[in-house]
Amino acid sequence: MTDASALDLPGDDLFGPDNLPYGLFSPANAGPRDTPAGADGRPRIGVRYGSHVLDAGAVAAALGSPHAELLQQPLLNPLMAAGRPVWQAVRAELRGWLTGPDRRDTVARHLYPLSGVELRLPFEVADYVDFYASEHHASNVGRIFRPDSEPLTPNWKHLPIGYHGRAGTVVVSGTPVVRPQGQRKPPAEAVPQFGPSARLDIEAEVGFVVGTPSRLGEPAGLDAFRDHVFGVCLLNDWSARDIQAWEYVPLGPFLGKSFQTSVSPWITPVDALDAARTEPPARDFPLLPYLDDSAADGHEPGGFDIRITVTLNGRKTAEPPFSSMYWTAAQQLAHMTVNGASLRTGDLFASGTVSGPDPDQLGSLLELTGGKGPFLADGDEVTLTAWAPGPSGTRIGLGAVSGRVEPARTV
Amino acid sequence: MTDASALDLPGDDLFGPDNLPYGLFSPANAGPRDTPAGADGRPRIGVRYGSHVLDAGAVAAALGSPHAELLQQPLLNPLMAAGRPVWQAVRAELRGWLTGPDRRDTVARHLYPLSGVELRLPFEVADYVDFYASEHHASNVGRIFRPDSEPLTPNWKHLPIGYHGRAGTVVVSGTPVVRPQGQRKPPAEAVPQFGPSARLDIEAEVGFVVGTPSRLGEPAGLDAFRDHVFGVCLLNDWSARDIQAWEYVPLGPFLGKSFQTSVSPWITPVDALDAARTEPPARDFPLLPYLDDSAADGHEPGGFDIRITVTLNGRKTAEPPFSSMYWTAAQQLAHMTVNGASLRTGDLFASGTVSGPDPDQLGSLLELTGGKGPFLADGDEVTLTAWAPGPSGTRIGLGAVSGRVEPARTV
Repeated sequence: MTDASALDLPGDDLFGPDNLPYGLFSPANAGPRDTPAGADGRPRIGVRYGSHVLDAGAVAAALGSPHAELLQQPLLNPLMAAGRPVWQAVRAELRGWLTGPDRRDTVARHLYPLSGVELRLPFEVADYVDFYASEHHASNVGRIFRPDSEPLTPNWKHLPIGYHGRAGTVVVSGTPVVRPQGQRKPPAEAVPQFGPSARLDIEAEVGFVVGTPSRLGEPAGLDAFRDHVFGVCLLNDWSARDIQAWEYVPLGPFLGKSFQTSVSPWITPVDALDAARTEPPARDFPLLPYLDDSAADGHEPGGFDIRITVTLNGRKTAEPPFSSMYWTAAQQLAHMTVNGASLRTGDLFASGTVSGPDPDQLGSLLELTGGKGPFLADGDEVTLTAWAPGPSGTRIGLGAVSGRVEPARTV
Repeated sequence: MTDASALDLPGDDLFGPDNLPYGLFSPANAGPRDTPAGADGRPRIGVRYGSHVLDAGAVAAALGSPHAELLQQPLLNPLMAAGRPVWQAVRAELRGWLTGPDRRDTVARHLYPLSGVELRLPFEVADYVDFYASEHHASNVGRIFRPDSEPLTPNWKHLPIGYHGRAGTVVVSGTPVVRPQGQRKPPAEAVPQFGPSARLDIEAEVGFVVGTPSRLGEPAGLDAFRDHVFGVCLLNDWSARDIQAWEYVPLGPFLGKSFQTSVSPWITPVDALDAARTEPPARDFPLLPYLDDSAADGHEPGGFDIRITVTLNGRKTAEPPFSSMYWTAAQQLAHMTVNGASLRTGDLFASGTVSGPDPDQLGSLLELTGGKGPFLADGDEVTLTAWAPGPSGTRIGLGAVSGRVEPARTV
């Protein structure tokens, strides 16, 4: 049983009472517990608090919460589907339980040390969309992939370019990344070769998780962002640059991306990032009304001041600033649905690689090495971490996302 | 109660005992029935037989089938996940029930006239991938979209080009198609305009539905096609050509396609198409081993002789021959997983527009009109039908897929 002192966090903890991200855990290595909840090994909804995980369903049941049933589900989707008023009510309850003077012993009884739990993919992914919203990244990649053309395509500053990725290969942080095999055609060769990717890369991104669905034919406008989006995660969109370069014209990336996408195990509620809201960069062209988020229209600032750190084998490699993104998540949501496409609970859309203007702010090895490499070697481990300003000088941590590269398997 | 004579089909019926496609239905308009099964309005698994639907779960329960529970589910996914030996056993049972001399009255009691049921989307779509496998289509589109380049990109004959589409907007035949709005930039304009698509088009395709899943990191080879693919449907990949043309460089089609994809309500088992197997066209380049389906390797012929008819407002518009496709579904499956990407039950992958070499064999209005239009007008109705050779001179029908265009809704 965890001591109630675990509830007393230092004020600078990245996972304090203003954060309260959701995840899914199994107390596989936790040893015998004095609570029967989840004794069947079924995953449970957890809330990270400092270096502990609160068994949210068990504590909700113990305290007679009206949301106990939602919190006792084996994945986040039902809570995500319940809508913003429920998200707000549950968040207020959690905060009360974790910070209130009463019930400390009851709450502490449902805390697990992070080191003793196994974290799972917290939600079932419906559709996965990846955008391309950093001007710096798109320009850098354009120069490398299309050296004879303008770096940005003519549409880039008029719409947030995006494409659908593979939802079925979104995995949780810690899942090994098996080096993919496939076709790639070195410039000096006449025909493509088959083999393990020699240019395995990362893409440091921020992911947005849709909770409330929408109906076919009914666009979700800019102002609907908070109603639909449940939370935020970190995301590494592993990319095989050699496979991608050979396959992607004319219909876009496919196998160069679809082998794996890793997400952090913690989904930070959008409401936890209020203090991190920031205006996006000035726009170079007027936007069509459905994308126009100029402050004059009364929209809240669409950007988020999220500061990402990329670590390769324990060494800091880059610090991409999410505040530099040209297109915001609210614009991406509005664009993605303006044609009438519906949203489902579990839809995941990601920002695209976050790269800032400076050489130490680039979110991919492709950019960090000017297209030359080195790329990832077998055994390399990449970790993304991030934080954003919280209320009153605190900081809000996003969950880390890690992956270690394993050698290609022979087909 | 349906008379047992409904079981006596003419030998040329497209939905006879060699077909037995699966769907999902609600007997909403069927009036009072003498069986309590499904009285709660829950969708039921149906098998089409002539112009009737067999309530597969109810008859399986009545006759004590070991598969009754699988067939009483409210969608096809559990049956699809059960794997090929179960698919074969269930198919043999169904054939026995529908054609055997005994139990005719019991079986007939669970037959519903097609006119009295509502057909549903028969399975939950996991990932949706669309290929681009017709050489004629790809060449025609290349000439229209990229008039200054070679029609086929250099990779086209080395790999089956594909991309992920939106799984959440796959709908069943009969769902209205609301004209999408979005950005498009006429050549004479300096900046994009917003409004309803003026170039709404069809794409006549064949879809393949994955039953048996696979594990991350383990490619499904050419020979695994029958083990993984549960069945075949018709598919109309509605496309807004003006939205698509403006958005698709460099990451591929997105909103020009994601508003809706319609599938037939009937999934024809792969085993029903044995007599339709055919060799694909001769290949112009040697293929890498994982895609090499030359007969010398002992693979069964990868093509299917499926003959599609496109009907616009009741008038036959084109007859695209699926046998002309350069890339086969087995090659698409092998390619899609060669990088280690896993399959899930409910994955749907489509052929891409089926177009043959002749002017009356083109599967899109873009091609039929040389890029000039006219495209679809509000109120237009498009229907795709198809059949394939069955055993002993019979024909196997695929379910029809229809949709009527509704005017754009104002945002």
